[in-house]
This record gives sequence, structure tokens and C-alpha cells, in this order.
Amino acid sequence: MGAKRIIVIGGSAAGPKAASKARRMDENAEITIFQKGSDLSMASCGYPYYVGGFFDDRSQLLCSPAGVVRDSRFFWNAKKITTRVLTAVNRIDREKKQIEFTELTTGERGTIAYDKLVIATGANARKPPVPGVELEGITTLQSIADADYLRKIKDEGVIKKAVVIGGGLIGIETVEALHLAGIDITLVELLPQLLTFLDKHMARLVERYVQTKANVILKNGVASFLGEKGKLKAVKLQDGTEIPCDLAVVAIGVSPNTKLAREAGLAIGDTGGIVVDGYMQTSDADIYAVGDCVEIPNLITGKPVHAPFGDLANLQGRVVGENVIRGNVVKFPGTIQTGICKVFDYGVGSTGLSEQNAVRLGITDIETVVNASLDKPGFMNGNLLITKLIADRKNGSILGAQVLGPGDVSKQVAIWAMAIKGRFTVDEMVNADLPYAPPFSLAIDHSISTAHIMQNKLTGLYRGISAEELRERLKDNAPMVLLDVRNPNEFEEVRLGLGERLIPLGQLRHRLNELPEDKNIEIITWCKISLRGYEAALILQAKGFTNVKVLEGGIAAWPYSREK
Amino acid sequence: MGAKRIIVIGGSAAGPKAASKARRMDENAEITIFQKGSDLSMASCGYPYYVGGFFDDRSQLLCSPAGVVRDSRFFWNAKKITTRVLTAVNRIDREKKQIEFTELTTGERGTIAYDKLVIATGANARKPPVPGVELEGITTLQSIADADYLRKIKDEGVIKKAVVIGGGLIGIETVEALHLAGIDITLVELLPQLLTFLDKHMARLVERYVQTKANVILKNGVASFLGEKGKLKAVKLQDGTEIPCDLAVVAIGVSPNTKLAREAGLAIGDTGGIVVDGYMQTSDADIYAVGDCVEIPNLITGKPVHAPFGDLANLQGRVVGENVIRGNVVKFPGTIQTGICKVFDYGVGSTGLSEQNAVRLGITDIETVVNASLDKPGFMNGNLLITKLIADRKNGSILGAQVLGPGDVSKQVAIWAMAIKGRFTVDEMVNADLPYAPPFSLAIDHSISTAHIMQNKLTGLYRGISAEELRERLKDNAPMVLLDVRNPNEFEEVRLGLGERLIPLGQLRHRLNELPEDKNIEIITWCKISLRGYEAALILQAKGFTNVKVLEGGIAAWPYSREK
Repeated sequence: MGAKRIIVIGGSAAGPKAASKARRMDENAEITIFQKGSDLSMASCGYPYYVGGFFDDRSQLLCSPAGVVRDSRFFWNAKKITTRVLTAVNRIDREKKQIEFTELTTGERGTIAYDKLVIATGANARKPPVPGVELEGITTLQSIADADYLRKIKDEGVIKKAVVIGGGLIGIETVEALHLAGIDITLVELLPQLLTFLDKHMARLVERYVQTKANVILKNGVASFLGEKGKLKAVKLQDGTEIPCDLAVVAIGVSPNTKLAREAGLAIGDTGGIVVDGYMQTSDADIYAVGDCVEIPNLITGKPVHAPFGDLANLQGRVVGENVIRGNVVKFPGTIQTGICKVFDYGVGSTGLSEQNAVRLGITDIETVVNASLDKPGFMNGNLLITKLIADRKNGSILGAQVLGPGDVSKQVAIWAMAIKGRFTVDEMVNADLPYAPPFSLAIDHSISTAHIMQNKLTGLYRGISAEELRERLKDNAPMVLLDVRNPNEFEEVRLGLGERLIPLGQLRHRLNELPEDKNIEIITWCKISLRGYEAALILQAKGFTNVKVLEGGIAAWPYSREK
Repeated sequence: MGAKRIIVIGGSAAGPKAASKARRMDENAEITIFQKGSDLSMASCGYPYYVGGFFDDRSQLLCSPAGVVRDSRFFWNAKKITTRVLTAVNRIDREKKQIEFTELTTGERGTIAYDKLVIATGANARKPPVPGVELEGITTLQSIADADYLRKIKDEGVIKKAVVIGGGLIGIETVEALHLAGIDITLVELLPQLLTFLDKHMARLVERYVQTKANVILKNGVASFLGEKGKLKAVKLQDGTEIPCDLAVVAIGVSPNTKLAREAGLAIGDTGGIVVDGYMQTSDADIYAVGDCVEIPNLITGKPVHAPFGDLANLQGRVVGENVIRGNVVKFPGTIQTGICKVFDYGVGSTGLSEQNAVRLGITDIETVVNASLDKPGFMNGNLLITKLIADRKNGSILGAQVLGPGDVSKQVAIWAMAIKGRFTVDEMVNADLPYAPPFSLAIDHSISTAHIMQNKLTGLYRGISAEELRERLKDNAPMVLLDVRNPNEFEEVRLGLGERLIPLGQLRHRLNELPEDKNIEIITWCKISLRGYEAALILQAKGFTNVKVLEGGIAAWPYSREK
């Protein structure tokens, strides 16, 4: 038997990873990557940072860690992998086990046979189907050409106004990049919130922060792009607003690029992604698929999802690279949809299920908690972290976590991702043995204190109310006592201004007579982060008040306007 | 029945935590903390940073997160906890269920009865039993008085030379603090390595780095302290060396302070700590013990250990606070001995078992791997991380990890701590779903790539050799080929200088004729971090070489001197 022929369609992330791993498994295999564009192994997640000027050397997007550009020569010399760039694959012929391709520069066509084929065709950026979308000045930020285009705009410094359409990960990263380029930005999002992997309350905290950098418009879509002489001049929104601008970046999501797979009759899932099994094998045993073009199981729900994350693409590539050589020996288990993005000086991340997603999936017997604290001690210049944790009320297992703030978000999300992967319960998390020293964390790490509150909530000790809920209740004008238990100087500095009264925790036991006689009246307590708020609630409960709740996350996690 | 009487001996960390939690569980309990010193709830882990001048406001060591000093008034007003400071407990009378105490300022003595007693007497800093130890200028860094003394020295700026005795966590933190104070430091350690929670090879990397800031002397203890007119003038070492200095900080570890417990006849373990069960209950059902004075089980070995970590003290306090009120309802499971410290611009951390510890405990069927990589992409100014991972060879479960470097060590250690707590196998870690975006990590996180190498090693694909092993082998003058596969420019910049030859990976396939004909000759390959080294090894193996090994962690993890 001759050398195994491995063809990989797609040379961005998952494709080259699969090819490289296949080479490491078999020095003699004939491995060829087909790539429509001219570049290979692009660090596409780095585009916004190149555009924003975090670094200036474009080749860093294309370099190996040793600083060598990963071009065709590199792939051949270092990995003995043939790469055919600027070559489009037109068709997969499953019967003949070959692909048909066109060299884009010469127009020459050809076929090449495979023993195993890997589809790594990625995803396409969506564009809104509205008039004017073809105008000059409208782009996505998906390809390296897009990155070049936007970087040129930054370097030229001529364009002063831009609209970013879409408040997801890429949209927000684009806002930061263009802001750093000195451009005034309006961010437009069709939905009532940014970053839909967050629950609304958490998204609102991000929105408040992004508002300080850009004009944010929610619940409004693009009706049309208006231009002059073929050039973009304004974006017209569905409510009629016109926003003058010379640049619009569209970031309304991506769709799996499954054209070849679909035409070849491979199974496509409801999410639009190619169906693969645990071995990343498609409905054809000789064809595997990886990366942004596939759907994979969510490990919590078991349901397939489209999860276009660069890290998963790489991990899948490693699995496929081994399986195409050795037969199906390793599995990619699926995803808990862990993600993170930098939003100026905030980190914003999520893993597992959000409350909204859980409810949408019919998982309603859940408990949630919002916790706010520093990431490390104040004397070490700790920064704020706000976490929303979601747990299963029946068995206490952790279902999801969202973390944001200027603090060390990345570590927090990693901790929760591991907890969810390990199917930890809240009871297991409360005594987690994490690394502690003042330069790195609080003595009780933020993640652990979040678990403590969740445990107190699950055992009925802590009764919380979310900011959203409180805001709704206030609209009803229900009789309730709002109690801020901080110190007077803190109250002078900042306060919610909901009609609350101030009784510092240290005075509460002696000033109970200031509270209504009706022990069943609803009382909401809070402080800066609601630790003292919790202690106040316990005191009130011990004194016979039956309906006391803590405002979760306190003032730090209040996502609405404040009096001061 | 009247209010429950809870007495807590010790007001530093675990004691106040237990008392506060008890209060939250029972508004009516009578809770009293006895504290020998004058301060309460000190952030003792912050002392080195106060000494070093990371912050100047001493009260921050004693403040609540809201900025209120946690003095007796605070404890009474906010928590209705009585605190008796400057009061020494002399004896526990288990029969009468009372303690005997002396007020240190007045000399008055008294007794007070308890329903439940909590011993939180902490640990004592050891001092070497050598002549001159009573001289002025010799201190530990354990109490707030020690911190005040050293901070005064920093502020006065008179003392220019100091010796730090002990290369453990506190010793190293002290070196950093005094270095920031502009003092020349010699660090003396009796053992052949610093930081004994690390394996020797990893410790050597720390040592090389600390050498750039202080003079490090290993395998040498203090023979005596030499003085003039009662003041320290020099430290004399066991080998006769005299080091002139005006200050010596002794940091040779701590011993559980169990005098009261011992005299009361409570069970004391082999580690010297008070024996407690999962509920943190001592051999007397009405007495609990928490924090640095107890021994707790190591969760991997099941064996009791003395683990004086501030985070564990707090977590144990929370458990005891609940149990003294509600009966034994919650358990503290034990520790995996996770720790971290800042060493100038490095983080150095560890969780689970080191190889040395595993071997000492008779756990020898283990596999280890050293991995070096950036924490995030080069274009985002990634910093180096070096990890040593230890796994069980039989079942692949992760037993321990050590991480160090200028990169994001804290997150890495947290990830491994969660993996060990969750009893993850290497196979489960290779597809972990961690948060990825370029500002936070590589597409394949350092922890995951470490797991990948471990998996490749466990399946026999990757054969590694540690730096230590290679160095030993070189002493034998065994015939072997040393192969650096980086690019010539990298080779010019830095190289090991072991007699290696340079064949860049990209040329290796065409230059195999430069290698010996003997296919069984030992070949060691490496590059900067040994990724290309690994690829080179696979090529050589495919070409029939039978004895090829990768130098683990490459040049980045080489802990010995280099040629350039």
C-alpha cells in the first residue's frame, strides 16, 4: 500500500492543525492543503488588535512562535505539507474520492484523489440584506484583507466616523480597535442587549461601560446604507435615524461555510453546520470536518451547537489529524461554549449556560447568583469582578458562569470552565484549593465566594433579589423598605437613589425601631458588594422580619443609573 | 436553653472567620475572640508587600473591604462579637468547659465558660538554635510587629546589607521586599534548592532568576549570628563564611502552635498539628481547631499534612463557624496544597504532588513533562510560562503541576488545581474548553498544550529527557548526538553550548546524511521550547532512528548556564 493521501480543504486554523498533526502521526503520508486565499495559518483572532495598533508588524499574524512566516515554503520545509494557495475547491466527488479545484491565478482546473478528506472551510461573515450593502466603506472584519483595509484606515487617519453593526464579540472588539484608531463610533445592535452569551443584566453592565467609549444603540437594525458616488455616507436605521459615517463594519455573526459539503450530500445539521460524530467524521466515513463549518455537541445539554471558536478549531484539528492516519482512535467530546473578549479595560467572559439560554432550553429549576468583589486585595490594587453563577437547584451542579469587569476575568472563567467540565457541584466548589497570595487573589478567591453565596442561597440562608427584579418591583410601587447599610461617607460618594434609607450595618441592631412594625414587609438590603447587605439581612431575619432580601452584587453590580 | 457560648482562641485569620460565620448562623450566640496581640484580622500575607512599599497605608492590613479597621469596636458593632485583645489564654479546662486567661496589660486573670471552643492559635515562626539569635537586628516576618520593624528599616534607609535565612515562600517574598527597599541581600538556604514545593529542576530556574536580584547560597546553614554591643554585625555560615550585615530575617518555616491543645490532652498528629476530623473537630467533641495549628488530609495521598495557607484557614473557619452552631453539618475535605508566590516579575506556583514528593511517598509509577510556551501570542506581548506536570502512568490521572515564569502563572495553577480536585485524567484535559482570545491566552492554552505533550508521552509518541537527566548523561560522556533544530539566527542569539550541532527543522529531512549511520545512537533534539524539537524527533524516528529524545521545555526551561 502506498502513502496515505490526505487532502485538507481550508488553510486558516483547523485545517493546518489537522494537517500538521497528521504529519506528526505519519512521516510518509501525502498531505495537501487547499486554500482559496493567499495566506495560511492566519491568527484571525488577532485582527482587531492589529487594526487597533496593539502591534504594527502584520507578519506577526502569520508567523510561527519562532518568528517564521507560515507560507507554503514553511509548510513544505518544516512539515513536508504541500499547500496550494489561491486555489479554490469546486467540488467533492465522493464516488471517485477526489476533489476538483481551480487555480485562481491561472484558471487552470484539476482533480486530486484522497484517501481521507478534511473539510475545514470555516464560516462566512453574514451581511444584512439591505440596500446599499455594496457601497465602498462597508466591510466585515473576518479576513486578513478586511484587517488590512481597516488598518489602512487607522493609519491614514482620515475617517472620523464609523458605525459598527452588531454587538457580539467581533462587534465589540471592532469598537475597541476603531476607538483606538481615533474614530467616533456608533454601535448598533438589533437585539435589546449586547453580547448575547451574557444574561441581560450582565450585558447591561457591559453596555454602560461601552457607552463611555462609543454611542450604543440597541433594538435597532440597519434599514439601508446611504451613499454618494458609490461611497458610504450614512447608515439608516429601522427607526429612521440616519447616522453619518464613512465606514461601517458589519459584525452580525457568521454562518458555517458548508457549500461544498452540502453539494456533496453530506449531512448538515439544524444549526447549519456539518454533522460530525465524536471522531469529527462526517456522514461519509472518508471525510472529516473541523472548525467553524461543523456543529458539535454542547456538553451540558447534549444538543448540537455552532461554536466558532479558534481554540476549539485547533483542538478539533488535532483530533482529526490523528484519526485520518490511525483510524478513529480519539474523540472530540464537545463544548461548554467558553468564550472571552477584551472590552477596553474590561474582560468579559462566559462558560456553560446563561440563565437565558437555560430557560430557553427548558431548564428552569435553576438558581442564580450575582457576586461582586475585588480580584485581589485593595492594598494590591485589586480590580472589580462581577460574576453571575447558574446552578442546578436539584443537585447543585454548576451549569454556567459569566464574569466581567476590570479584574482578572480570564482566570475566573477558566476556573468555572474546569468546574463545569468536571461536573462540580456548588458544595465541591466552596472548598476549592486555589492558589492564593495577595498579588494574585483574595484569601477567599472571588470564584469561591461566589460559590459560598450560591450555597447559602441553595440552603435557604441567603435570599437574594436581582437588580432587574428589584427594578421591576419598584415599578409596581409595592410597599417595601430599601436599606443601604454602608457607612455615611460611602453613601455620600455614590448611591442608588431609589428612595433607600441609610442605616450602617454597625448601627442596625440598635436602630431596629426605625423599621416598620409589620414584620412581613419586604425589606431589600445592600451595600457596595452586598456582603454587609447579607449580614444585615440575617440580623433582620433573626429579629423576626420574614421577607428580607439582599440586592445581589450590591451597588457594584447595579446596571442602571445611580443618583450619584 | 440560653444563648450558645462560643469561645475562639486566636484573632488573626481562621478565628475571626469562624466567629463571623457563627454569628451569621446564630444572631443570639455569645461569641468571644481572645487575642494575645493588639490587632485583629490582620492580612498577614500582605506584610511583605507593606514592607516592600507596594502600599504605604499600614491600616490597609487591618481594614475591611469597605475601609474600616477591624478593631474591637468594629467586631462588636458590625458582628456583635466580643473581642478580648491583649489577652492570653493560659489553659483550656476541658472538664469544666472553660478557659483561663490573663489580661496582659493589667495582669488580671479570669475564666470563661464555653459550649463550643475553637482553637485558632496559628503557627510560630521557627528560629535556628544557634548562638547570637537574640541579637538586635534579627527578626522573622510573621507578626505585624515584624512588618512594622522591617518597614521602619525600609523607610529609614540606613541598613544596606541583609541576610535572609530560608528559601521558602516567606524567605523569597522577604528578599523581594528588602530588594525593593534598596537593601543588598544574601539568601541562605540549608537545602540544595529553593522552594521545596518545586522539583529541583524548577527550583533551579527560580534560583537563576533570584540570583539576578540577590546573592543566593544553597546547602549552607547559619552557624551563628555575630554581633557588637548587642547588635547584629554578620551571619556566620556552617562552612565558615561570614556575611557582614545589619539585618537578618529568619524564614525557616513555621510550626503549629499547639501548646494549649497539647496541655489540654487533645490529640496531636505526627506533623505536629492538632488532629481534627472532617468537621474540624478535635478529639474533644466540644473543641474545634482551624488554621495553621491543625493538620488536614492531603486529598491525593490521604495522609495528614501541615498546610499553613491563608486561604485554607479562611475556608476552615467558615466550616467551623457553621458546625459550632448547627452541629456537624459541613466538612472541610482537605487540601491539594496549592500555593503561589510572587518572585519579582515571576509567578511561581504549585498544586498537587511534585515528582520529589510523589517519589518520597512511594508513588513511583508516574510520568512527568516540562512544557514551555508563551501565555498569550507574541503579538500581544505574551510572556513565558514553564510548567512541570506529573501524572499517574497507570490511569493517566493528573497528580501535580508546578508553574513558573513571567507569564500568567496564577491562572495556570488554578486550572491544574481544578483538574486535580476534579480527578481529571490527561485525556480529559487535552480537550478542555478554556476561555480564548489573544489578550488572554494562546489558541491552545499553555495548560492544554502541556496536557497534549503528556498524552503524547503516555502513548509513547513523545520520548522526552529532562534537563537534569541530560546533564547527568553528559557527565558520562556517552556517545550521543545533540541536535538544536532552530534557525541559525536563533542559534547565534542564545545556545546551550553542550557540543550540539545545528540543523534547522526545515532542512532536517535533506540533511539526514549528516547524522551517524548507527540508527541506535542516542539523539537529543531541542529548539526554543521543544515543539520543533518534537517534530524533529518524529522525523528521525520515521527514518529509523530508535533512540531519539526531546529535551523537555527546550532552551527556555534549561536551568543551567548557557554558552550565549
